[in-house]
This record gives sequence, C-alpha cells and structure tokens, in this order.
Amino acid sequence: MLLLRRVCFLLPSPSPRAPLAKPLPLPLRPPRTLAPAARPLASMAAPAGGTAATSRDAFRAAVTNTLERRLFFVPSFKIYGGVAGLYDYGPPGCAVKANVLAFWRQHFVLEEGMLEVDCPCVTPEVVLKASGHVDKFTDLMVKDEKTGNCYRADHLLKDFCKDKLEKDQTLSPEQAEEYNKILAILDDLSAEQLGAKIKEYGIVAPDTKNPLSDPYPFNLMFQTSIGPSGLSPGYMRPETAQGIFVNFKDLYYYNGNKLPFAAAQIGQAFRNEISPRQGLLRVREFTLAEIEHFVDPEDKSHPKFGDVSDLEFLMFPREDQMAGRSATRLKLGNAVSEGTVNNETLGYFIGRVYLFLTQLGIDKDRLRFRQHLPNEMAHYAADCWDAEIECSYGWIECVGIADRSAYDLRAHSDKSGEKLEAHEKFAEPREVEKLVITPSKKELGLAFKGNQRMILEALEAMGETEALEMKAALESKGEVEFKVCTLGKDVTIKKSMVSINIEKKKEHQRKFTPSVIEPSFGIGRIIYCLFEHCFYLRPGKAEDEQLNVFGFPPLVAPIKCTVFPLVKLEKFEVVAKKISKALTAAGISHIIDMTGNTIGKRYARTDELGVPLAITVDNTTSVTVRDRDSKDQIRVEVDEVASVVKEVTDGQSTWADIMWRYPAHTASVAEDEEAEP
Amino acid sequence: MLLLRRVCFLLPSPSPRAPLAKPLPLPLRPPRTLAPAARPLASMAAPAGGTAATSRDAFRAAVTNTLERRLFFVPSFKIYGGVAGLYDYGPPGCAVKANVLAFWRQHFVLEEGMLEVDCPCVTPEVVLKASGHVDKFTDLMVKDEKTGNCYRADHLLKDFCKDKLEKDQTLSPEQAEEYNKILAILDDLSAEQLGAKIKEYGIVAPDTKNPLSDPYPFNLMFQTSIGPSGLSPGYMRPETAQGIFVNFKDLYYYNGNKLPFAAAQIGQAFRNEISPRQGLLRVREFTLAEIEHFVDPEDKSHPKFGDVSDLEFLMFPREDQMAGRSATRLKLGNAVSEGTVNNETLGYFIGRVYLFLTQLGIDKDRLRFRQHLPNEMAHYAADCWDAEIECSYGWIECVGIADRSAYDLRAHSDKSGEKLEAHEKFAEPREVEKLVITPSKKELGLAFKGNQRMILEALEAMGETEALEMKAALESKGEVEFKVCTLGKDVTIKKSMVSINIEKKKEHQRKFTPSVIEPSFGIGRIIYCLFEHCFYLRPGKAEDEQLNVFGFPPLVAPIKCTVFPLVKLEKFEVVAKKISKALTAAGISHIIDMTGNTIGKRYARTDELGVPLAITVDNTTSVTVRDRDSKDQIRVEVDEVASVVKEVTDGQSTWADIMWRYPAHTASVAEDEEAEP
Repeated sequence: MLLLRRVCFLLPSPSPRAPLAKPLPLPLRPPRTLAPAARPLASMAAPAGGTAATSRDAFRAAVTNTLERRLFFVPSFKIYGGVAGLYDYGPPGCAVKANVLAFWRQHFVLEEGMLEVDCPCVTPEVVLKASGHVDKFTDLMVKDEKTGNCYRADHLLKDFCKDKLEKDQTLSPEQAEEYNKILAILDDLSAEQLGAKIKEYGIVAPDTKNPLSDPYPFNLMFQTSIGPSGLSPGYMRPETAQGIFVNFKDLYYYNGNKLPFAAAQIGQAFRNEISPRQGLLRVREFTLAEIEHFVDPEDKSHPKFGDVSDLEFLMFPREDQMAGRSATRLKLGNAVSEGTVNNETLGYFIGRVYLFLTQLGIDKDRLRFRQHLPNEMAHYAADCWDAEIECSYGWIECVGIADRSAYDLRAHSDKSGEKLEAHEKFAEPREVEKLVITPSKKELGLAFKGNQRMILEALEAMGETEALEMKAALESKGEVEFKVCTLGKDVTIKKSMVSINIEKKKEHQRKFTPSVIEPSFGIGRIIYCLFEHCFYLRPGKAEDEQLNVFGFPPLVAPIKCTVFPLVKLEKFEVVAKKISKALTAAGISHIIDMTGNTIGKRYARTDELGVPLAITVDNTTSVTVRDRDSKDQIRVEVDEVASVVKEVTDGQSTWADIMWRYPAHTASVAEDEEAEP
Repeated sequence: MLLLRRVCFLLPSPSPRAPLAKPLPLPLRPPRTLAPAARPLASMAAPAGGTAATSRDAFRAAVTNTLERRLFFVPSFKIYGGVAGLYDYGPPGCAVKANVLAFWRQHFVLEEGMLEVDCPCVTPEVVLKASGHVDKFTDLMVKDEKTGNCYRADHLLKDFCKDKLEKDQTLSPEQAEEYNKILAILDDLSAEQLGAKIKEYGIVAPDTKNPLSDPYPFNLMFQTSIGPSGLSPGYMRPETAQGIFVNFKDLYYYNGNKLPFAAAQIGQAFRNEISPRQGLLRVREFTLAEIEHFVDPEDKSHPKFGDVSDLEFLMFPREDQMAGRSATRLKLGNAVSEGTVNNETLGYFIGRVYLFLTQLGIDKDRLRFRQHLPNEMAHYAADCWDAEIECSYGWIECVGIADRSAYDLRAHSDKSGEKLEAHEKFAEPREVEKLVITPSKKELGLAFKGNQRMILEALEAMGETEALEMKAALESKGEVEFKVCTLGKDVTIKKSMVSINIEKKKEHQRKFTPSVIEPSFGIGRIIYCLFEHCFYLRPGKAEDEQLNVFGFPPLVAPIKCTVFPLVKLEKFEVVAKKISKALTAAGISHIIDMTGNTIGKRYARTDELGVPLAITVDNTTSVTVRDRDSKDQIRVEVDEVASVVKEVTDGQSTWADIMWRYPAHTASVAEDEEAEP
C-alpha cells in the first residue's frame, strides 16, 4: 500500500498493531507542586467492584463536563443540533490553542530557523492525485441496506468482538482467542475479509438491525468545485504537507540552494469521517502543524543532535512490540548509535518533540515513542515513530515523525514535470563508479502485468550488495528468485528484465532528490491529552466536596492571572484597576473579578479555568499572590506585582523561585476553597 | 436587499458608489525617518508623457515583482500551473501575517477583554440558510454560449465602458456621460438591466468573441457534503461571524449574563469567485478577523470612548459623497456628538481601527473612513463605515465597521427556535407604558401575498411617533398610505391589518435582542496595502541603480534583525553566533549571514525583506547596529545588543530614542549600499 502512513495517521485505533496490552490503571496525577494539600485522589480510583474502564469513563466524564461547562470547547452549531465531528473552541480553549501554537512556533520555527509557509485549504485535484490521496485516502464503509445509514466496517467488527469478549459469559476459550486475534489484525483486513467476517458473525446495522452492504472504500476528502464552471474538481486538503512539497523549488532557492533546511506549516485540515467518535480525538476538521525537513539522503547527521542525545524517555521499538514486551526508557543517543532509530536527524526531531510535549505539560510517564512495525510503514519510508500519549481512550497517536525518503518530491516531480531536486557542486570533477540498475519496463510488463510497477520499484531500490548478488546470479543462471515486499511474495527475474552495471563517470556535481523527515502534529489531539493530564480534583470546604482544577503550566494557561479585590471597597477597586492596566501593558491575559463573591468561590471558579496565579487586593500598597496548585501565598508590592507575574508566566522563573523572595501570607478562613453553588 | 452588506463586503470595485473622483497622483512615500539619503523618488514619478495610471502600474509591478521574488507570496500550486485566486504566503509573508494577527489579538482581544472563539470552516446548510447566504450570496454571471467559459457580468460591462472612455477618440460628450453614469451605478443594476446593456452594446466573450448568455446569479460559496451519505449539504464558510452568532447564548453566560461584551474570531473564509482579478485583493480563500460586539440597543455609549475622541483623521460621510465633495479630516468626538457617526460604540471601534491600521504602518493620509450610502446598507443596519486604504488599485475596502442592529441574532433565533436574547433584571418591578404593534399576518397575507413579510417587518420597526400617527390616521380614516423602504413603494394599510396600542404593564425584567456592532477585517487586503505603503526605492551605488526597500515598522517586519560578520574571520563568527543565540532566547527572529558577500550587498538583500536593524560584527567587544531607513549606525557592546534590538522591535523605544544613547559609527566605503548582481 503506497499511502499506508498517510492513510493511517490520525486514524482510529490507538497503536493498531501493537500487541494488546493489559489495560493500564489510570494514573491520576497529583498536582504539579507537592504542596501539603496535594494527595493521590482516592475519590477517582476505581469504585469498589468497578473496573478500570468504569474509572476511566468517570474520569473522562468529569474532564469533559468541566471542559464543556467552562467553554473550553463545545459541539459546533449546537443550536441547530450540532454536526458530528465538528467542535468550537470557546474562549479558554481558544487561548490554550493559541498558546500551544505560539510555543510551537518558538520551539520549532524560530529556534530551528525553519521557513514557515501558509497555503490554501482548497486544493485542486491534480495535487492530491499526485500525492495518492484521490485514489487511496479511503476507509471501508458499509451501508444499512434499507435506510442508507453509513458505518465504518472495521468499527462494527471491533465493537462486535469487544462486546462478545466483555459480556458473553458462554464464550469458549477458542472463541475468545479468535475475537482477540481479529482485534489485533483489524487494520490489516481487506474489504473482502471484513465483509466475510461481518457475514459470518451476522453483524447488522446497530440502529435498525437491518442487513448491511458489502464493505467498499469511501474517500475521506471533502470534495468541492473550484470556479463556476463545475469542471475543476477540488478538495479541502487532508493535510498541510503537500503545500510545502509543491513549493520545494522556491524554498530551496530561498534557502540559498543549500540543504538541509526545514519548512513548516500550521493550518486547518479536513477529513470527512464516516462516523466520528471519541470527541476531540476524531474530528472532521482540525489543526495540523507539519514540518518537512529536507536533507541529503547520503548525510542524515544533525549538527545539534548533541543537544538532545542525553535525553532518556519511554521508547517502544518494533522488536519490543513484536516480542510482546512493554515500552522501556532508552537514552536517545544510544537509540541512534545502536541503530534502533534510523538516523541522527530523525533522532533529533524525536528529542525535540519530547521536549515540546513535556514543556507543554504532557506527563512524561504517559508519553512514549512507538516505532512503526514493518507492515505499518510505506515501502519507501526509512523509519517512522509516533509520539503516543496515554489518555482515557488509551494510547493516542499525537505526533508522527517519519523519514519518508524521496517519495513525495518524486511524486510531484513525476506528475508536474517540474524537477524537484537539489544539487551539490564538486570543487573539482570526480571520477565515480556508479551502480546503474536499469529494469526493462517492457519485459517486466509482459511478464507481470499489473504488478510491474511494484517489481520495478523494488528492483530500483536494491542496495549495492543485493544488486551485485543478483547480477552474479543472472549471469551464471540466467534467472533469480526476488522477494518483493510490497507484493508479499517472490517473483522470478530473468536476465532480459534488468541490466545491472557498474559504470565509471566524471561528474561535476551530484543531483539528487532530497529525503524528507516529517514531524506532523495533531494539535487538537495534543490539546485534548493535555486537558486530561492537567486535570485533577481536590477536596473542597464541605465534606465530600470535590473541586475541579486544571493544573496548566503558565505557558499554556488560557488566562495567566486574576485580580480580586478582597471585599467591595472603592480603594481596593482602584488598586485592582491599576494592576489590571499594568498587566495589559505587559501583554498578560487576566480576569478582573469585582463581584462580591467570597474569595474562596472566586478561587474555585478560576482554578477550574487553570489560572496559575491569583492576585488578591487586600491592601493599597501590597497584595497577596496565590499559587493555584500549592495554594501558597506571598505578599508583593502593588508596583511590582505585574512584573512578578510576567516573570513566572514567561517561564523565566518558577513559583518555587519567587516564593522565597517574598514574605509568606497566611490564608485566613475566608480564603479557603469553596465550591460554586 | 436583505444581505446587501454581507454580499458587498470584500467585493470588487473600490468604493463602488462614491462619485468618481479624479485619479489621485500616486503618493510615493519617502522613507519613514527623514535621513539625509531620503528624497522623493523622481524615478517613480509618471514618465514624461505617461499617465498617472502608467505610473501606478509601474509601481505595482515593482512591488509585486519584489514580493514574489522574495517569496512574500507566490501563486499556489505553481508547478501545476496555479489556480486563479489562490496564493501561498512564503516565509517572510507568513511572518508578516503572524505579526499582524498577533498585534490584532493584543490590540483588540486582550486590551478589550474580548472572548475569542475558533469555529470550523465546514458549515451545515441550515446555518447559512438562516444567515441568508444560501439564497443571496451571489454574483451575476454570464457564460460564453459556445465554450461555457464564465464571466462576471458587471466586470464585462465595466471593462467595456472604461475601454470606451480611455481609448475611443470619437466619443461624443453624451456617450461619455452615459458610460460614466453606468460606472457609477454598476452595482445597483439588476440582472435584467445588466443583460440589456450587454445586448445593447454588443458585448461578447473577451477571449472568443462568442455571444454571451443572459446574466444569472451564481452562489459564491464552495459547496461540499458532510458525512458519507451525500444527504447533508455543507459549505465552506464565507465569513467567520456566523460561528459567533450561533454561540451567543453560551458566550453571554460565560460573560456572567452581562452586556456589553465582544466575541472575536480569526480564521479562514472562502468565496468561489467567478473570475478572480486584482492579485491578493480578490482571492478565493482568505483570512478574516471579525469582532461581534453585543450591546443593549437602548444604550450604545462606550466607557472608553474618551480614549479615542480626540483622534482626527480622514472621514467621508455620506452627505459629502452625495454632494461630490472629498473626504475631510474630522475629529472623532465631533463626528459622534454631531450625529455623523450613529453612536459612541461604533465611533469607538472606528477610532480603534484607525489606531490599529496606522500602528501597523498604513499611511494615515491614504486611509479614510467612508460611510455607506443609504442604498448600500441593509434595511436593518443602523450605520456602517468602511476603512478604505488607497493603493495602486484605488481605494480598497479593508475593514467594515457596521451596526447591524439585531438582525443576525434574530435570524438564528427564528430558524433554530433557540432564544438568543439578553435580559436586564430590575431592582424592583417597573410600571411601563409599552407601545405594542401587532400586525395581523392573515390580513397582510391576504392583501399583499409575497410582500407580506417586508410590510410586517416595516410595521414592527416603526418608531413611536410614526406609530402613533398611523394609529390616529387609522382611527379617523380607516386606512393610511405607508412607505415600505424595502419594497421601494407605498402600500395602503387598513385598520384590520394592524393594531397599535399603548399598554401599561408591570415588568420585573426587560428582555431584548442585543444589537451587534461588527468590525470585520480582511487581513490579506490590509497586508497587501501595507506592502504598497511600506515599499520605496532608493538610489544604489551604481548610477541609475535603484534599490528596493520595505520600510516595515519593527512591529510587522518579518525578520527583526540580521547578524553579519564584516569579513570571514573565525573570531567574528564566534561573536555572531553568540549574538544569534541571545536573540533566539529573546524570541527575536533574525538572519545570520556568514557568506563572504560585501556588507553593502548583504544590506541590500535584507532591506528588500524589510529587516529594520542590522548588526555587523566588526569587533569582538562592540558591534555596529544600522537602521534600515536612515542608514544611521551606532556602536553597541556585544552583551547589550540583543536587549537593544528587543527594545526597538518590541516597540518600547524607537530608533530615534536609542540613537542618542550610543556613539555613532561612521560608515566606511565598503558599507555603502550595493545592488545584487
């Protein structure tokens, strides 16, 4: 399958081909700073007699409820009943997203000197024909034969198997094994195999119990028409990457005709999912941030690899997956030097992605880098790792980091006739020995018909040793067996089908198609996982009362600080307004709350929005600053408070750093936590 | 026409209904700072014997050429021949756009405490049916009867008239007057009138000279289908505003059920133009930034109006347009107090938009606020002003600022059945006299059939005086003539058709649909005008040589600073890298150029990108900092230079401020300007 990676990315089942691990108990994270109040949340552990799954569902419900109630996000077009798979970010969600994207730009575009571009979503058919999306970007669908309702074929089979395994008490061990096996290989099943299983198990439409059609491919792109004639089909782009590839030539020129360089794009992408599920994780429109790092295929070293080589984190190489082991902590430098990760540049980006995610607030113990298994990768890909984040839905693919070799540039070069290549000028001409593999299209076509192209590509992709062995075999025996991975079988190659020679040439420069290493970020998925990782409960004032807190790091917190006059007094309000003005001038988003609510109630309301710092105006010369997670309080002069807040929210200092510089403030009873009515 | 404003916004002819002003001589702006080198650019003035139009075209060609060559923007999908009306922003264009949007967020969202939202582009039909776009968002199109090629009917007629006026030497004064009149009323012509004129003048398809079809409406939305069934039509949103309106209820709640508040959204919008022209000004996909400020219709005062009331700038009230006068400088406070601008809130936003645009770098002498003429405004709109910017295409509408009254919320309320209203609770119940106008739908329907709705709306919209007069007339005569603006004629209202009463009621609260004041920014248009306003030429080293400069203010400059080792020496490169690191840490985008090119060549290359400051490393302890526009140079210590650059690019200081704090550096011959080879 040519487009396996692209088709798979951001598709449903978390780590589809990883052996089914036992469900992990949900790690309910204590707050970030280990303050006295912090403790493991007993109330969120599995209820007596409940399962891990129930606990996960309860946790997810608590998070989602808070997110929707406080307008982090809401279903789009709600007053018209909504549309599945479309969500709006409300004010705090929108602010979190803007913060994540700003940090992405700082961490990748600015620090790595990347070339950012911004291309349209509307894309003409020819571009997506070249990329393979028009032909291959499909999911298998079945229709209710009476109502015409559509379902994803694999979802129905998956639900059936899971249901049987969970609820059918009469299941024999053999049956259980069969259902488990199907769940493990679900993504490898062809349309015919899926159809056969659906028939065999008598699966019917879930809503109506009507019979279902055979599975058939449905293209996931939103189609439209460009211009008024109706003759120019177009699509809403399913990814942002193609906009970079088609601009390669100009970008290479912009970079002074030098490699390596990276281009980046942040933008909307669209997938017309058959039946979206899983909330924010599977949507029909989403924000992608993609990097295409173009590099000489003969030199994938990275000058800054040393900056990340000492990082150690959870990695899940394909050997460990296939042997049924779990992910282990590896040192990135070793993973590259031992060949687990294909090359330094790929390794460098894995390290940078790790730093990006953990600095955002992703829990490093619930983040792993999983390598694609051979059958997950397209034949042209050199290596591919997904950053997977664990949340209540399981391990979710949030960033894909792939070495896609020269595939994309070649595809657009072939289709457009425009050469998309780089060149290296030699100081003086070089005498080179070149291995030249020239397959005969005609002979291959006659012998293999439809499979011709796969075989041709496999021949051209042979390494030097393999090619020389073949040459020797062809010369001695006249034919040779040749394994074609993409066909999954051996074919017989005859002497007439390919010529393999070593030629001597004088060369003045080397022309080549650059390899591309592509880190691709599903921003909405990262944000949703961040919501789950940052959410915790803590006891309120009343017995059994639980207060919701989003423990966002200052970097991503939607609102950085609050300003509360302790009581309704004009002199406090004057100070509050003065502080608010200073915060605005410093570019710090904040809320000023003049309501007469108790201070505890105001804290509780803003803890739920994840505001890291609260300024309480209880005096006209100095004020109280409170840290959300530890609830520690310090006293700071009015004139100084905006710059103290800026120091923490800009990341120059942590709360711990500044806490010792200012006198502590002891909370009065009135400032205790209090839930909303 | 219900949707006049929405249909008109960002549509083609600059200020379509303004009387045709005489073409303005192109103001070729001298550089921002009045340095010795600065002088009016004789070379760009109209060539001897040439016209103002030729000079404009030459200027535009120079700007566009630079923009495309330096990858500010390029036609999208160029390697496939491109698609009309779609453009990519390359690295510097993308950075300018990001800077404009960041400043927009700071200036509007943060400083005004607006609620930002982020809604999908894919929109179900029902939403755009309610807003009127499905029925009314059209342009009139004609087809080549043989090839099927499509053209905008008004464009063909406009081109024909302009061509006659410019080139036909035999034109009689009467004919000239007729063509001029058509150009003035072009946007008011109906399909029938346009068709008749096209026939009368014998206008044919421009490419083939084939006959043309009659004009007919073409809907400008990109249509698609949501989900796999093909039964749920959807469109790519033509504006971002609807996403805010449908969320009104949640946003009102989020704001503590209090008015006024504003919501904002930045995002892509789509219009499937029939035949896009005018480069970046008329595109099929573009970024909008829209604000919906919800306010009590009975109190449109604004607490911060005083902050902008002293501003004075070019305004173009409708009376002046109709009397054939030009725009004049007015003080905003007077414009509001004298009733030229309808209310304080509208006035406040006009002032804030003025500040936003001029701080970006838009020339205040080429910016005017033009009021809509009565026939440009929808019947529900209270007042509407466009910020128009003059560029080589004429005066271009870049921001629309409209008081749309309650129209949008009512439309969605009616369609969805969800009440979108606000309420004001009274401290104690109030006895109120209420004018109650109750039209009889049945009687109106019987008498007026299809026009019933227009008449009903006009009756309900009557002011108190008008209603009481009608009541008196109906009681004395039994019927009355009533002017319905939306029908453009009088109708006879009988006593049975409407009851008008004054009723006394005790009310505990007041419920009402808020008015909405909508500033709507075409970001791409603003950026294009900014490119033109910032571009200038200055003489190079060689005779007749002209160097391109983009004089961007530091706020929008795509790259803030360069770092150049004066000559290739390791000790200079070490210092350059150290400075680069400090700049990155401070979040300042910069270029480090280690090539051995002359410093003059490197300055010229980066002046063309609009980089405001250049650091030349010519010493290991202190360096030279050069200002782009004045070419003044100062000497700054290595350790201090990043913070000096930050001070200027953050807007805390200007070049003039810091120039006096550091010793001047006298440029050597080698540092003179030099063009690229």
